[in-house]
Amino acid sequence: MRILIGNHIDPSIRARGDMRAWTQRLFWFARPGDLLILCCEPDAVFVDYALAHTGVKREELTVLTAPAGAWGNRLLDPASLTVPAFVEQVRAALGPDGGGAVSEVFALWPSAAVARLANALGVSDRFPGAAFFEQGGGEIGNNKANFRALAAASGVPILPGRICRSRAEAIEATGALLETSASGAVVVKQAHNGAGVGNQLLVRDQEMAVDHVGARHLHHLAPGPDGITAYWAKRWPWASREDRWPVVIEEFAPGADAVYSEHYTSDEGTRATETGRLHYVGRRLSHQVVPLNGVTEPVRTALLDGGTRLAEAYRSMGYRGHLSADALVLPGGRVVFTEVNAQVSGSLHIYQSIAHGIVEVAAAPARQVVEYHVPPTWAVSSFTAFLAALDELGLTYDPATRMGVIVSMPAIPLAPGEPVQFVFCIAYDPAEGHAGAFGRLDARFATVPAGTYDASQHIGTGAVSFSS
Amino acid sequence: MRILIGNHIDPSIRARGDMRAWTQRLFWFARPGDLLILCCEPDAVFVDYALAHTGVKREELTVLTAPAGAWGNRLLDPASLTVPAFVEQVRAALGPDGGGAVSEVFALWPSAAVARLANALGVSDRFPGAAFFEQGGGEIGNNKANFRALAAASGVPILPGRICRSRAEAIEATGALLETSASGAVVVKQAHNGAGVGNQLLVRDQEMAVDHVGARHLHHLAPGPDGITAYWAKRWPWASREDRWPVVIEEFAPGADAVYSEHYTSDEGTRATETGRLHYVGRRLSHQVVPLNGVTEPVRTALLDGGTRLAEAYRSMGYRGHLSADALVLPGGRVVFTEVNAQVSGSLHIYQSIAHGIVEVAAAPARQVVEYHVPPTWAVSSFTAFLAALDELGLTYDPATRMGVIVSMPAIPLAPGEPVQFVFCIAYDPAEGHAGAFGRLDARFATVPAGTYDASQHIGTGAVSFSS
Repeated sequence: MRILIGNHIDPSIRARGDMRAWTQRLFWFARPGDLLILCCEPDAVFVDYALAHTGVKREELTVLTAPAGAWGNRLLDPASLTVPAFVEQVRAALGPDGGGAVSEVFALWPSAAVARLANALGVSDRFPGAAFFEQGGGEIGNNKANFRALAAASGVPILPGRICRSRAEAIEATGALLETSASGAVVVKQAHNGAGVGNQLLVRDQEMAVDHVGARHLHHLAPGPDGITAYWAKRWPWASREDRWPVVIEEFAPGADAVYSEHYTSDEGTRATETGRLHYVGRRLSHQVVPLNGVTEPVRTALLDGGTRLAEAYRSMGYRGHLSADALVLPGGRVVFTEVNAQVSGSLHIYQSIAHGIVEVAAAPARQVVEYHVPPTWAVSSFTAFLAALDELGLTYDPATRMGVIVSMPAIPLAPGEPVQFVFCIAYDPAEGHAGAFGRLDARFATVPAGTYDASQHIGTGAVSFSS
Repeated sequence: MRILIGNHIDPSIRARGDMRAWTQRLFWFARPGDLLILCCEPDAVFVDYALAHTGVKREELTVLTAPAGAWGNRLLDPASLTVPAFVEQVRAALGPDGGGAVSEVFALWPSAAVARLANALGVSDRFPGAAFFEQGGGEIGNNKANFRALAAASGVPILPGRICRSRAEAIEATGALLETSASGAVVVKQAHNGAGVGNQLLVRDQEMAVDHVGARHLHHLAPGPDGITAYWAKRWPWASREDRWPVVIEEFAPGADAVYSEHYTSDEGTRATETGRLHYVGRRLSHQVVPLNGVTEPVRTALLDGGTRLAEAYRSMGYRGHLSADALVLPGGRVVFTEVNAQVSGSLHIYQSIAHGIVEVAAAPARQVVEYHVPPTWAVSSFTAFLAALDELGLTYDPATRMGVIVSMPAIPLAPGEPVQFVFCIAYDPAEGHAGAFGRLDARFATVPAGTYDASQHIGTGAVSFSS
C-alpha cells in the first residue's frame, strides 16, 4: 500500500485560500490498497466519478481526514499530520504489518511535515527525499529565484534576468534590463506563486500583444527612470511579499509559446515523463495540452535536454519525486527555461492518470488531452449539472472512442450560490482538435455578461484556488 | 594579474555596520600584479605592514576604491562595482591587454555584483561560478537553513533540528526538540549571520555550562509551553529578521568542540585546504587555531569526509571557490556539521597566507598559528602602539624563529577615541602553546575594568564588525 497525502504548499511559504477541491485530484493517483490523507471529507460524487474512470473501488481505499488545524478544513495544516492521535489513526489504518505494509509515501507537496509523519510511522525510507524535505528542501526546490541560480549553474538557457533582495536592487535591475531588452518589457515574478498569478508584466509599449502571456498582472510603465521608481515604490511589498522572498526580474520575450517537460527523479537517476503546452488567455492559464505537439524536433530535443539537466541539478541537490521544468519557445525556435516546480504539478494527473492511464493517448488511433479551466464567462451551477450537460451534448467521455470530457476535480462555488469553478479534460482526436467540443460547452455555459467579472482576478485569488 | 575584490555579504542579505578594516585582509591574498578593489582608501600603515610580511611590493599592486554608494565608504555598495565610470577605471587599470590580462576574479563574498563586473569586463569565465553567483547563488550557499537540507540530502551528520518559516512552526519545533533533546536546550540560528552572533541558546537548566558555546545570546526558558511561546512572541522578529529568512532550531550539544574543515571547489572537483579549531569565551569567538590538533584520527577522518561531501554538494549546486564546513566534535567523538560558509571565511588569510605562506607551519620545527580577537577587556590605543608593545615584549614576529605576532587587519576604534579592535595571529611552537605570549599581552592591555563593558555585544554589532 501507499500513503498518498493531499496537501499543498506549506502555508508558511504561500498561504492559499481554500484547497479542499483541488487537492482531491489525489484520487486520480489512487491504486487499490492505498491510504489517502486529505484536509477535508472528500466530495463523494467526485470520488465515485473519478474512481469509475480509474477502475479503483472505493472500498479498496482508506481515506483519512487530518485534524482541522489553523485553517480549519480549508487547508491542510502541516502540523496536523503529526498530532499524536492522528499518527495513531494512520498507524491503525496500516493494518497488522504497520509500517512494513507501506511501499511509498507520496505527497502533492514535499513538506517537512510529511517527512515527520513518515518518521513517526517508521517509513522514512519509503518517502523519497525525506531527509532533504525534512529540512525545508521543498521550499528550496520551488523558489523561482533559486531556479535561476541552479539553471545558470547547469548551463540551462534562461532569459536575461536578475534576483533582487531589496527595492533598490529591483529599481537598478529593472532599469538595466529594460535598457538591453529588445522588447522594452520585463516580467516581475514572486518567488512562490503559480500559474502566472505571481507574475507581473511591465511594459513601455502600450500596443504590445500580451494577452497570451503567463503574467496575471500588467503594468504600463511611465516613461523614464521615474516610471520604474514609481512602480517599485508601490509593488515591492507585493513582489517580495513584504521583503520575505527574493524577486525575479526577467526580460520579457514577446510571442513565445509556453511549454513544459516533466521528469521524475529518484535515487537511481531521472527520467522524462511527459511534455505539454500551456495556453494563456487574458494572461490567465486557460488550458494545457498533452502530449506536446506542433513543435519541431530541435525544439523537442532542446526542451527534453534542458529539462533533463534541470532534473539532474535538482536531484543532485537532494530533490526526489516529480518535477516540471517550464520553458518558452521563442519565435526563432530557441528554448529558454523559466521555472521548475519541484512538486506534483497541475499536470501530473492529466498526463499520468487521464491521458496515459485512462485515454491511453499513445494507442492507435492517437488521442490528445486538453485540460481547461472553466472560463470566467461560464456559469455552471454544479458538478451534476455539468455532467448532465455533457450527456446532452454527447460529450461524456466514451471509452470506446477514447474521446470526450473527464472532469478533473470537484466543482465548488467561489462563494455560496455562485457558479462553480473546476478544471476538466477533453480527450480528442488530434486531427480534429478540441475547439469543437469546447465550443459546444462554451455555447452552453458562457452566460456571464462581459464586464461583470474581473478576468485577471477570477481564479486563484478567491476562496477557491487551484493549479500549482 | 588577478582582480581581488574586498567586499562582504550583500547588504540586502545582511546589513553590516562598517567593513572598512576587516575587508582590508584582502592584502594578505595579494600577489604581484594584482588589482585590488576596496570600499575605502586602505590604511597605509597596515598595508605596508602586511606587504612587508608577504614580500609583495606596494608598487606591484593597483588599488582602486569603488565609488561611495548607499553606505558611503563604510560598506562596498554592490551597485558601485558596475557604475560605468568605475568599470572604465577598472578597464583602464587592466592595461593594454584589457580583460585578456586577467587570470582570475577573486571576491571575499560571491556577489552577483561581482559577476556583473566580470561580465562588463568580459572576464566572466575567469570568475569561477559566475553564472551561479550572478543569479543569487551567494545567498543560497550561505543560508544556514539551506545548509541543513543540503547536508541531510548528502547524508552528512547534523544535529536534530528544524527549519521554521513562521512563529507557529518555531513554537511547535522548539517544543518537539526540547522533548527529545538530552540537554534540554536548543540553539536558535538566524539564517544569515556569523561567528555565533546570530545564534541564541535556549536553556531550561540554569546551571548548564554554556560559556564556551558559539551563541552570542542566551535565554533561560520559563517552564513549560508558556516559556516557549513567550520566547517566540518576543524573539521571532529577531530570529527571522522580520519574517525575511527561515530560522534554524537545533538541539544543543553540550561540551562539544567547534572545529572546521575548509575546501576549495572548482570545475575540476574539490580539495580540502585546511582544518582548524574555534574557541569561544563568554559565547563570543575568542580565537582559532590552525592546523587542527588534539583530535583523534577517527575525528579527523570524519571531519574531512563530511567536509568533502559538503563541498561536493555545494559544488553540484553551482558553488565555486573557498568554503568552510563548520562542525562540532561531541564528547563521545562523533562529528556533526553545523553550517557551511560558502565564501572567503575569516580563516583563509590565517591558514593560507599567514600559517602556510609566511610561517610555513609544516616546515621543521613545526609551528602553529592562533588568531585572537582583541578581548573586550583590552584597551589598545592604536595599531602603532600595539606594534611598539610587541617590540618591547619581544613578541614581534621573527622570521628566524618563525614565532611571534602578526596583526591580521587594520586596528580602528569602535567609536572615535575608544580603544581599537582587531584580530592578530600568534605563531608559536605547539609544544609550548600560545598561552605565554597571549598572557604577556593580556597583562599589558587588559585594563578595562570588569563590569564596564557588555562582553556579549562588544564586537560585531557596533561600528566595526568583522569575522564572517
